[in-house]
Amino acid sequence: MEKEKRAAEKAAKQQELAAQQAAAEVDFATDFYGPLPLHQSQTRPRLARSQISSFSARDGETVLFRARVQTSRAQGNKMVFLNLRQRSDSVQALVSATPEKISKQMIKWTAGLADESIVLVQGVVRKSPEPIKSASVQDVEVHVSQVHLVSGIDGRLPFTLDDASRPDTDEVVLDADGKPLQFNRVLLETRLNNRVLDLRTPTNQAVFKLQSVIGDLFRQFLGSNGFTEIHSPKLQGAATESGASVFKVSYFKGNAFLAQSPQLAKQMAIAADFERVYEIGPVFRAEDSNTHRHLTEFMGLDLEMAIEEHYHEVMELLDSLFLSIFHGLRDNYSNEIEIIGKQFPADEFKWREGPEGTLKLNFRQAIDMLVEDGVPRETLDDINTENEKRLGRLVKAKYDTDYFIIDKFPMELRPFYTMPDPEDPTLSNSYDFFMRGEEILSGAQRIHDPVLLAEKMRSKGVDPESMKPYLDAFRLGCTPHGGGGIGLERVLMLFLKLNNIRRASLFPRDPKRLDP
Amino acid sequence: MEKEKRAAEKAAKQQELAAQQAAAEVDFATDFYGPLPLHQSQTRPRLARSQISSFSARDGETVLFRARVQTSRAQGNKMVFLNLRQRSDSVQALVSATPEKISKQMIKWTAGLADESIVLVQGVVRKSPEPIKSASVQDVEVHVSQVHLVSGIDGRLPFTLDDASRPDTDEVVLDADGKPLQFNRVLLETRLNNRVLDLRTPTNQAVFKLQSVIGDLFRQFLGSNGFTEIHSPKLQGAATESGASVFKVSYFKGNAFLAQSPQLAKQMAIAADFERVYEIGPVFRAEDSNTHRHLTEFMGLDLEMAIEEHYHEVMELLDSLFLSIFHGLRDNYSNEIEIIGKQFPADEFKWREGPEGTLKLNFRQAIDMLVEDGVPRETLDDINTENEKRLGRLVKAKYDTDYFIIDKFPMELRPFYTMPDPEDPTLSNSYDFFMRGEEILSGAQRIHDPVLLAEKMRSKGVDPESMKPYLDAFRLGCTPHGGGGIGLERVLMLFLKLNNIRRASLFPRDPKRLDP
Repeated sequence: MEKEKRAAEKAAKQQELAAQQAAAEVDFATDFYGPLPLHQSQTRPRLARSQISSFSARDGETVLFRARVQTSRAQGNKMVFLNLRQRSDSVQALVSATPEKISKQMIKWTAGLADESIVLVQGVVRKSPEPIKSASVQDVEVHVSQVHLVSGIDGRLPFTLDDASRPDTDEVVLDADGKPLQFNRVLLETRLNNRVLDLRTPTNQAVFKLQSVIGDLFRQFLGSNGFTEIHSPKLQGAATESGASVFKVSYFKGNAFLAQSPQLAKQMAIAADFERVYEIGPVFRAEDSNTHRHLTEFMGLDLEMAIEEHYHEVMELLDSLFLSIFHGLRDNYSNEIEIIGKQFPADEFKWREGPEGTLKLNFRQAIDMLVEDGVPRETLDDINTENEKRLGRLVKAKYDTDYFIIDKFPMELRPFYTMPDPEDPTLSNSYDFFMRGEEILSGAQRIHDPVLLAEKMRSKGVDPESMKPYLDAFRLGCTPHGGGGIGLERVLMLFLKLNNIRRASLFPRDPKRLDP
Repeated sequence: MEKEKRAAEKAAKQQELAAQQAAAEVDFATDFYGPLPLHQSQTRPRLARSQISSFSARDGETVLFRARVQTSRAQGNKMVFLNLRQRSDSVQALVSATPEKISKQMIKWTAGLADESIVLVQGVVRKSPEPIKSASVQDVEVHVSQVHLVSGIDGRLPFTLDDASRPDTDEVVLDADGKPLQFNRVLLETRLNNRVLDLRTPTNQAVFKLQSVIGDLFRQFLGSNGFTEIHSPKLQGAATESGASVFKVSYFKGNAFLAQSPQLAKQMAIAADFERVYEIGPVFRAEDSNTHRHLTEFMGLDLEMAIEEHYHEVMELLDSLFLSIFHGLRDNYSNEIEIIGKQFPADEFKWREGPEGTLKLNFRQAIDMLVEDGVPRETLDDINTENEKRLGRLVKAKYDTDYFIIDKFPMELRPFYTMPDPEDPTLSNSYDFFMRGEEILSGAQRIHDPVLLAEKMRSKGVDPESMKPYLDAFRLGCTPHGGGGIGLERVLMLFLKLNNIRRASLFPRDPKRLDP
């Protein structure tokens, strides 16, 4: 009897356990998680979706939002912490086993989400007990009720976003116990090979936000100063300006060439009475320069304007333009500058203002400064990259500015279309602008007289016949004019001290890179 | 004696005459006219210079201004009338012989100024006795005290600005007596060969003003809707999208290809979490199409955005974008539209608004309209240019709109990256926008899934391996997205009914034209 009773008890217990197990395995949460079918616009329920950046103000609200899984971390089999990201914003989300709401299967599935997956999350925003240091939104977290996969990862990530976001510094970073922190560095080459992933870092989101802001500031300033935007063709019939660094294009049964700048077209727009024009467009340079500051394709911010009395009208307008860009960046985008500064530490970009104004040196004065600093005068026919940087340091030490202008370059250093100085024909009415000791703008008064222009062409070895449509523009009468061209990526790189121009270009092109 | 007296009298008279002649020949006005030395920024007197457009309000004031001589007309040897032009503005100026101020020599020199010369003029603004019909400023004229030549003409003008500004119509224009007016027509080819001169007409000044305005309106709308401007490379490592119509570039020791659109790059920006992006940049098409609406290089206004629920989010945003452009043009630039309308007469561009909204047809409905109108259904696998125009006329007659959308194009008519319809795989989530019966935008939801994308590539004969960097972007997880590309010149041409796209491009490029 006793034996039978025990056997019966045992069987009952086993039954009970099996029932319990079966109950546990029944997944009551299947509707609350899992992959969504491929989004083909099947339905349009018109449910409002939220931005993580708004969550701090929404304690207690239910939110629905799409985000990347930056990291997922399981705590036992009852809880998962997700770090969810939208561009530069991130929030902590937790998925916690709850009867009839969050099943263990749902916990397990969520814990298995690959980094960089895209999920659609529903949950309630709750004040977090303590600041969440790993997220940009630190005062609230999301208690998840549903999580679905919108887009997964196919394969393995070449690097993590955490690694790609580390400070770009050689300094050893110490942990709380004073031990050097170990982490993976992501090389620039690796980043550029996987640029889509690299661009997702908060730093890069901020960099390209500021790139677009510089374009906006450029247009705003010029628009309010009477300039018209033009779009000039990049396909040219002849290898203009200087034949050496021009890309050749197969054009039906002949050839075309890619414009090295909109120089000719914008001057022709002046001859066509446009008075003040600007263009934002790609510029192509077939130079085999593999440096930190050369690209084969970059964005030119170009302008050209009629002169009334003196080419300094142009130089001064360009100066005001730069000041408006510097102000626009510093005054309205300190958040982005700060985000970028964490990865690329830099002294704040400095410029002079008020009555003293921007520092303007003549070329001769710049040479004198270098000679005084010990550079042999005989090596200074031109200022090379090394001496440019040296001059930048000398100017910074003496005048406390990262931004200055050099005026009156020797004629022989400038292109054929540059107007000579009226007193000294070895000098020219031309200028360069500098940021942190690197040239970011080159400009001048141009020759508007066809006879002098043809003469200067010949003296620089250019056959006037090869540039007839350009020369003809001046034969039809042209107002005195001047202008300049700015490299967008250089301004962005130097303002933020990104140290390599490739970081300032969405998908950079250099002699060795045409992908992605 | 008598004889001697007469001889003496005669001699005295001759002397007097000679003295008078000599006095007349002494030019007291030499400082007030003549050619200026070549403008090399010799001086900077900082004298304010004026705009002709301000003159109506400046009766009695002395003004100094630079302008083109559109025409000069001598009245005897004592007076010259000049028509002076600044862009779209013109004013009558008169130079009238005045003792000690305006000499006959000055009159003669001024009368000899070539059309299109640039002069610097000083004078007093005076109410004109009657409206001056030949000038845009009709209520005042300038009484000239000084006129100097800033830039002359070298050779003969290929056509006059007056001829280049005549209405572009085959209608016979009658004069006041009812006789047909005779004037020279300037052919488009001649204009384009001498584009700098052609661009000086008030019509072209207005056309390119509006071109820049469309770009501004595009940016303003998208900027206020959370879009970031991007700049993607035009040099590509592979002949993407469709190999046939891609220009090949010699790239150092290898080859590159010019981007046919920023399609791949803007989708990669979405995969990089930019969420909403736009680009204004050149687009290159190596198609040997010599039509009124094809260019080998044109400006693409492109955008791409993440989709939350349905691709109609994109289509509706694009619709709002167009309405904001149409409104911006019509409401703020009626003056320019009117100037252009004089040369290119057009029915005002019409669109639907309010509760009924923009007309949206499905592709099938559009086909049915054409079939009802007598087009054989079996010829309507696609809508060719002719049927596009026919459809535009049918829609205009039935719905009184020049602007409409066609949705749900057959999959086989669209590129490989187009998302198929969820119910009917022969259809796609794609749309075209039309103005005056011509396509001006093409767009769609895109495939964000790498497996389906590779499958569609293969089905269209594209080797997925040849587009690896693009395909890889989606392997890293990508949000559902869609977008569209707008041809800037087409929008400008069709809004204003310029009838040929070359008129909407500053320096147009087609298979036969690479200059100027």
